Amino acid sequence: MTTRSWWGWGTVEDAVTPDERQHLVTRVRSVLPNADLTLHTPPDPKTLALPDPRISPSELYSTDPVDRLAHARGQAYRDVVRNLAGDIGTVPDAVARPRTEQDVVRILDHCGSNGIAVIPFGGGTSVVGGVEPRNLDGPVVTLDLQHLNRVLEVDPVSRAARIQAGVLGPALEAQLKPHGFTLRHFPQSFEFSTLGGWLATRAGGHYATLGTHIDDFVESLRVVTPVGISESRRLPGSGAGPSPDRLFLGSEGTLGVITEAWLRVQRPPVHRAGASVRFASWERAVEAVRVIAQSGLHPANCRLLDPAEAFLNAGEPGSVLVLGFESADHPVDAHLRRALELCDGEVVEGVAQRWRGSFLRMPYQRDALAQHAMITETFETACTWDRFAELHAAVTEAATAVLAEVCGAGIVTCRFTHVYPDGPAPYYGIYAPGRWGSLHRQWDEIKAAVSEALINAGGTITHHHAVGRDHMPWYSRQRPDVFGAALAGAKAALDPAGVLNPGVLTTRTSAGPAPR
Amino acid sequence: MTTRSWWGWGTVEDAVTPDERQHLVTRVRSVLPNADLTLHTPPDPKTLALPDPRISPSELYSTDPVDRLAHARGQAYRDVVRNLAGDIGTVPDAVARPRTEQDVVRILDHCGSNGIAVIPFGGGTSVVGGVEPRNLDGPVVTLDLQHLNRVLEVDPVSRAARIQAGVLGPALEAQLKPHGFTLRHFPQSFEFSTLGGWLATRAGGHYATLGTHIDDFVESLRVVTPVGISESRRLPGSGAGPSPDRLFLGSEGTLGVITEAWLRVQRPPVHRAGASVRFASWERAVEAVRVIAQSGLHPANCRLLDPAEAFLNAGEPGSVLVLGFESADHPVDAHLRRALELCDGEVVEGVAQRWRGSFLRMPYQRDALAQHAMITETFETACTWDRFAELHAAVTEAATAVLAEVCGAGIVTCRFTHVYPDGPAPYYGIYAPGRWGSLHRQWDEIKAAVSEALINAGGTITHHHAVGRDHMPWYSRQRPDVFGAALAGAKAALDPAGVLNPGVLTTRTSAGPAPR
Repeated sequence: MTTRSWWGWGTVEDAVTPDERQHLVTRVRSVLPNADLTLHTPPDPKTLALPDPRISPSELYSTDPVDRLAHARGQAYRDVVRNLAGDIGTVPDAVARPRTEQDVVRILDHCGSNGIAVIPFGGGTSVVGGVEPRNLDGPVVTLDLQHLNRVLEVDPVSRAARIQAGVLGPALEAQLKPHGFTLRHFPQSFEFSTLGGWLATRAGGHYATLGTHIDDFVESLRVVTPVGISESRRLPGSGAGPSPDRLFLGSEGTLGVITEAWLRVQRPPVHRAGASVRFASWERAVEAVRVIAQSGLHPANCRLLDPAEAFLNAGEPGSVLVLGFESADHPVDAHLRRALELCDGEVVEGVAQRWRGSFLRMPYQRDALAQHAMITETFETACTWDRFAELHAAVTEAATAVLAEVCGAGIVTCRFTHVYPDGPAPYYGIYAPGRWGSLHRQWDEIKAAVSEALINAGGTITHHHAVGRDHMPWYSRQRPDVFGAALAGAKAALDPAGVLNPGVLTTRTSAGPAPR
Repeated sequence: MTTRSWWGWGTVEDAVTPDERQHLVTRVRSVLPNADLTLHTPPDPKTLALPDPRISPSELYSTDPVDRLAHARGQAYRDVVRNLAGDIGTVPDAVARPRTEQDVVRILDHCGSNGIAVIPFGGGTSVVGGVEPRNLDGPVVTLDLQHLNRVLEVDPVSRAARIQAGVLGPALEAQLKPHGFTLRHFPQSFEFSTLGGWLATRAGGHYATLGTHIDDFVESLRVVTPVGISESRRLPGSGAGPSPDRLFLGSEGTLGVITEAWLRVQRPPVHRAGASVRFASWERAVEAVRVIAQSGLHPANCRLLDPAEAFLNAGEPGSVLVLGFESADHPVDAHLRRALELCDGEVVEGVAQRWRGSFLRMPYQRDALAQHAMITETFETACTWDRFAELHAAVTEAATAVLAEVCGAGIVTCRFTHVYPDGPAPYYGIYAPGRWGSLHRQWDEIKAAVSEALINAGGTITHHHAVGRDHMPWYSRQRPDVFGAALAGAKAALDPAGVLNPGVLTTRTSAGPAPR
């Protein structure tokens, strides 16, 4: 039995060890010798004074203070450092844990009739303020579907499974395994995020090409809305009007609560081929990735690491491409050979394994570093190939400049998480020394500056981290106003009382940083 | 220079020759010896009395009678036989041919302010009553974007092109060709349908797997709506809220007028491998196609013909699978070899070529047969593999029964146009002797019976022919009511005067056949 951390990522048991912490601190000191790396420990949550709940506890609603606190925000750096500082902000009045879909209906009815905001929590791993009752004055219920955690049905002929939305990644895979299937959707948050959260936020998964988002695996959705339940037909494809599922995918809890879905599942791969390639320059590496992305070879993995990313997270010099092919049906060696022909670089060993090891520890390490007042954050986007060089220069420049201004120094890294024939999905990391006591305000300034650069350079404010509250100012500029009006019209029809995750997607805010 | 037929498919010059007609009639007589195959010729359109237009002709509006007549309906069998009978129904008051996007804005402004319905025409190849002012009492303008017919920009790095919506298939490909690119979207209507029509109806194209619908090639859309212009960012992928493009794709002219789009284009294939396989039974053929669809081999062509389809349209006995692989980058022989390993049938020669020849002549032959009072129609759907056998039996039974009842006899054929890991897109053809003078009423009965069977068996009312007016009763049942409410909310926001293609998608109608 493990214990979820109340203030940071994952479980208490898996947090960094003293040795790992020492190693991290030493590594940071080697690149940022002037950083003040004093260790700060989190407060005891029981000592934090919560406002009295404005909702009575009941069979459906828990008002336990630590429960409320653990559901007050997500897992953004901004969230973690506020927790560490004991800055609890707005906390939900109650946590609802429905045991059935009918309970969800009852909760939405109750909240709709009483003007209570409802925030679907997923696994609570939002890194964009998606589950935080920020700027909400009225009562708030956070909805945790943890009891709706079962694979209900498997159709081995069509290779699809009906799955409840509250299931966490590992439990989902464990229930599919006896049937010989896998969903193979592995976001970094896999252990602690839910199917419903993936669907509501259009999460990005395992595959670098083809099925990059969970969207592509959706056969049908079942959604409880304040005006009724929407269930789309199980269909492999359709052209009957705009896709109902595509409206709910990415709706981030603002149109309804996804309770279950039919997902396309697959046989686990038995054929695999992979290699890593080091390039003489970042530009030549990008060009090779573009050619591979346009080749129709469809690598499962096509992760390009820039020199900083390769060095920090895989101990490897240069720009390195981690390539992988897989199939449950046929050998893929020829695919790898052809992809390597398209790369003018040298094959290097062991990078994929080392990088994967780092990848899984990253969230824990981020929190450990936060305790030493280090600011670490990620920005992810997508753009067309013709704009990438310019976007990359602009984002790197903006990030470097804002880190210098706000933190005095900092490191910017880049990798590609997913690639498309018409463009990459670049993922930026920043590491900088912060000032204890000002971390989340510093973060806000950095976030704003880099988001401005992304949006001005033609990128999307998010490729797979969702919009939440943190991205709203830039989402409002990215999204066509006319589509914003359509979405508001759809929301008014489905959520007439406006109780579903207020402040996300359909509320316009002027451009600028998140409230402080 | 060719002349478009005013009453039927395509051009006057490409209509069936006397020899081809004689051959068709002889073939029909061989299977339906009692059919009355008297030839009926279309009326002179100048003799058909049109109501006076309620809109004044102007630079933007043509009120020429033959122009109005040629824009009064699409190319469904129902449309063709009404034309042949001189039954002109409701005709638009004017045809608008904007020369610029600003003209489109002016037309929507004028129509919105004056309660004039606007029907975007595309290329007028709708087979579902999508462009017909059926049941509209007020004035109607049909919008023909034929002048917005250019490829405006090609981005060779990202492999994308910005294209105006009014361009027909051949002109689109001709403009891409000098750049070394192709869209490779070839619906059967290719010659006479437009990009805007494909987008608004989620048309199905060349590829049997992966990019089956035009949707998958859309990078961004520009749409004129009554409340403003919506333009989405060019993005290879995004997770920022529900996809704006996916709301307009399939909106069938009810939310706005698509004026241009960025489409993902490709290099033409240089590597090809194909073969056709005959199976001992339909069931074994279906099973092989399922295994191939789930193999990850991604054939470009995977067209399964049932014995009736193979015999009628390729002169081949048995159930035959036409398989094809293609690539612009790498050999695909290994893919074909593996797919053939998955088939327990015998390779047969020449089927693909013969079938393709028939495929392109089908619409002309349908019209020639209509002149002999033959009823020919298609029904297309998609369903999951686990339901296919049942759906197939139900549709075949319903079609056979209704043909026996309404026509005394008839033939039902089936093929797969597209296949997915979780299910096929079956396409049914029917051929039956009708009664001159009652053809469209007979058609309505057949359409209703087969559509009922499709919907009751869990299929979609359309995989790639759109909803239009003909499919509305069944679409209303297929679509979740809650999604219908969301769509109505979105429409009310974008088209407050309700002038855009009234009667399609957002109007509820009770289940039942189309009005007579």
